[in-house]
Amino acid sequence: MTQDTRLSQQLTFLLEADKLKQVLRASPLCDNSRRENSGEHSWHIALFAMVLADQAGPDVQIDRVIRMLLIHDIVEIDAGDAPIHGKFDVAAQEAKERAAADRLFGLLPPDQAVSFRALWDEFEAATTPDAVFAKSIDRVQPLLLNESSGGGSWTEYNVTLDQIDSRVGVKVAKGAPKLWTFVRARIAPFFSR
Amino acid sequence: MTQDTRLSQQLTFLLEADKLKQVLRASPLCDNSRRENSGEHSWHIALFAMVLADQAGPDVQIDRVIRMLLIHDIVEIDAGDAPIHGKFDVAAQEAKERAAADRLFGLLPPDQAVSFRALWDEFEAATTPDAVFAKSIDRVQPLLLNESSGGGSWTEYNVTLDQIDSRVGVKVAKGAPKLWTFVRARIAPFFSR
Repeated sequence: MTQDTRLSQQLTFLLEADKLKQVLRASPLCDNSRRENSGEHSWHIALFAMVLADQAGPDVQIDRVIRMLLIHDIVEIDAGDAPIHGKFDVAAQEAKERAAADRLFGLLPPDQAVSFRALWDEFEAATTPDAVFAKSIDRVQPLLLNESSGGGSWTEYNVTLDQIDSRVGVKVAKGAPKLWTFVRARIAPFFSR
Repeated sequence: MTQDTRLSQQLTFLLEADKLKQVLRASPLCDNSRRENSGEHSWHIALFAMVLADQAGPDVQIDRVIRMLLIHDIVEIDAGDAPIHGKFDVAAQEAKERAAADRLFGLLPPDQAVSFRALWDEFEAATTPDAVFAKSIDRVQPLLLNESSGGGSWTEYNVTLDQIDSRVGVKVAKGAPKLWTFVRARIAPFFSR
């Protein structure tokens, strides 16, 4: 492959990725002015990982976590965002996301198509220390946006604290137990109003 | 400092950073539907650095570049975005950005306030290999958004290819010379229409 072919493939992928800025999520910005999109969400959680690195176990490589978080939502360009408190067919959504990963990472030069896909698969499987921590970060950020904005998707989906515990808390606690204790105490008053 | 105080400071910074999603830049999204904001821009250029890592010299540490790019625009929360082709008082803008860096990175726990500020200062000074490459990436992305969207800020500010060469090309070429050659050939036809 020529250098130009490689660059052309890389830029095609990067400009296709621009579409992630138009995928809207369930959570609003902190000031409740509009919904967050998946592009800016990906930046925010990468920053969360960078700042909250000391919440990770000693076997976590934060720079790999950051890379994972930068690409983890790209499949939503084709598959859309499936809100955690919404109703959706999990198997069908997973199939859509795998097809999206095939198409989108397939735009890259072959070596990067393989390495980016492997990183995405690792995030999805959530079994390695890096992926478990990445999931904790991805799950904790919307809680703080919902709390700051006065309810957000909690209100929209009529969510209880028990549901937060079982759908979100278990995953945050798995990768970042002290962070979960702290954040749960912070959000709990919202649910006793 | 207690663990809780540290976490509280970190979350205060991360939630203040949410405001970067509301700072609008001069360049539009690729489909020209709206302007890009600085939060999603920061994600996009971190992804650019990850994908285009092979354009960097051997002394560049891409993971440091990614971290630099994730925080480089945070000062715009207070100082706003100064479009490269617009007219503004450079010294006044730099003073506003330094004051913003004082306030925003100062929200972090003291050790992180120092390390994040040092990384931002390094990006601004643009003398280390990591910072020079980071600047190349930050400058090349808007060219591709303008070209894809049909003109963007080039049209708004009536920009010529000579001005692109002197204001942008020199900096892209310094950190990523082959990338600049490729991108310049791609955007040049726009200016000969």
